Amino acid sequence: MAEAAGKVNELLNALIPRIDVPENRLYDAMRYSAMAGGKRLRPFLVMQGAAMFNVAESCALRAAAAVEMIHTYSLIHDDLPAMDNSDLRRGKPTCHKQFDEATAILAGDSLLTQAFGVLADPKTHGDPQVRCDLIATLAHSAGPLGMCGGQQFDLMAEKMKLDIGAITRLQRLKTGELIAWSCEAGAILGKQPPEIRHKLQAYAHDLGLAFQIADDLLDAEGSEEEVGKSVGRDAEAGKATFVSILGLERARSQAAALADQAAKHLEVFGEKGKLLRDVARFVVERRT
Amino acid sequence: MAEAAGKVNELLNALIPRIDVPENRLYDAMRYSAMAGGKRLRPFLVMQGAAMFNVAESCALRAAAAVEMIHTYSLIHDDLPAMDNSDLRRGKPTCHKQFDEATAILAGDSLLTQAFGVLADPKTHGDPQVRCDLIATLAHSAGPLGMCGGQQFDLMAEKMKLDIGAITRLQRLKTGELIAWSCEAGAILGKQPPEIRHKLQAYAHDLGLAFQIADDLLDAEGSEEEVGKSVGRDAEAGKATFVSILGLERARSQAAALADQAAKHLEVFGEKGKLLRDVARFVVERRT
Repeated sequence: MAEAAGKVNELLNALIPRIDVPENRLYDAMRYSAMAGGKRLRPFLVMQGAAMFNVAESCALRAAAAVEMIHTYSLIHDDLPAMDNSDLRRGKPTCHKQFDEATAILAGDSLLTQAFGVLADPKTHGDPQVRCDLIATLAHSAGPLGMCGGQQFDLMAEKMKLDIGAITRLQRLKTGELIAWSCEAGAILGKQPPEIRHKLQAYAHDLGLAFQIADDLLDAEGSEEEVGKSVGRDAEAGKATFVSILGLERARSQAAALADQAAKHLEVFGEKGKLLRDVARFVVERRT
Repeated sequence: MAEAAGKVNELLNALIPRIDVPENRLYDAMRYSAMAGGKRLRPFLVMQGAAMFNVAESCALRAAAAVEMIHTYSLIHDDLPAMDNSDLRRGKPTCHKQFDEATAILAGDSLLTQAFGVLADPKTHGDPQVRCDLIATLAHSAGPLGMCGGQQFDLMAEKMKLDIGAITRLQRLKTGELIAWSCEAGAILGKQPPEIRHKLQAYAHDLGLAFQIADDLLDAEGSEEEVGKSVGRDAEAGKATFVSILGLERARSQAAALADQAAKHLEVFGEKGKLLRDVARFVVERRT
């Protein structure tokens, strides 16, 4: 995972150069957030999925960088005072704290826009139909029917009484869709048939849910120092989470069960699917 | 122009449906801003450019809707309190005034994301290479090397002393690049060779500059009621504009000269280029 992260970091560093222009503060902010580390889970999923289908690493890396740009933009915007109002992210001041709100908004917009530019470039894949597939599916996963809709739902959820079905839907939109894209991108790059893509979607569905429950557990149990971002915010805001509804114990066993289930979807791929099966376990066992 | 606007409005209405979900406030905000009227200049440019090269109207309309989504998102974000802090847009309360800041940020993000989804769809053009070209060029025009960079520069310009060269660059980034894309999209859809695309780029360059000078003149001379948005803001902020540097008279004659020059680039297209040549005149004579 560290190896994939290193390669993606290198590409992000090249894709977001620091240019000597009056508005270079924008590039500084984009680089600050994009290069701030983080697990690079989504890039790793893209890389592993692509490796299963013999996709050239240079292609997979570009799709990986694109989804990390989208993920980074979403963190920048979600942290804004008008949204979650967070001061800390990946152990450092959030983008609007380090720079200012206007710059943070524009840095997010820029990363979002550039992600699609990266995918549209012939370097990402020789077949333009594949590039269009990547773009269409990513726009769906990141847009109002996916991540943006999920964040809106999340903001409104503070005033709602959510049951487990609603929380599951919220998670699917807010984080699940982008994770699902990351899992499927390799199969798109490898021009795999629908039944293969469905297997990866099923894996991603369970993985995403497990990931969110693990996130809720970290927010409830972890320390700010350990997790690298503000914790305990959900309870403070009186927000329903998997943990608040299921309780710590059931949430923990649910996450583990989902991780097992996720891994099972990839058994058909044999040895090639091993790393992604391991990811499922990692996701629920991680401490940050 | 009204005819093109009507058709684009119809398509935008279909592309941004109101869906019955807990987060429907997001769709309401997207629709509120996207359907708020406006001149629909960019869609008109796309439609006219496409008509010159016999592109199917259904294809041109989708590219037109995409660029209007991008333009609308940029207005929503630019109006935010952290940016230009505007209360009025197209004669109505700005998105964050009508809804709230978080919803406005997400509505902008959603429109930006969806624009690329619209372009990636086979309905926009049968050839995926054309769709990738549209996406790559739009991402460039709207991203940090274009519109986002221009807005960042504009925010920082309040503390700078800009000369005419710097203001011209600022305009090119902030509004020129997206107008240029609108002028070129028809030629991309019509698979035209580089020399044709260059003619349209040259036209767009002069048109964009004329457009911005006209905008500065409206900000200096127009009434809020007439223009439909807050006016006099530039002078208030002590911001250098074409008008503050050139003076009213020279700014007016400069805009007219640029409009003439823009029209000249299209003379090679004969009768087919007439409407776009008329646009150049309209842009400097408009009162809103």
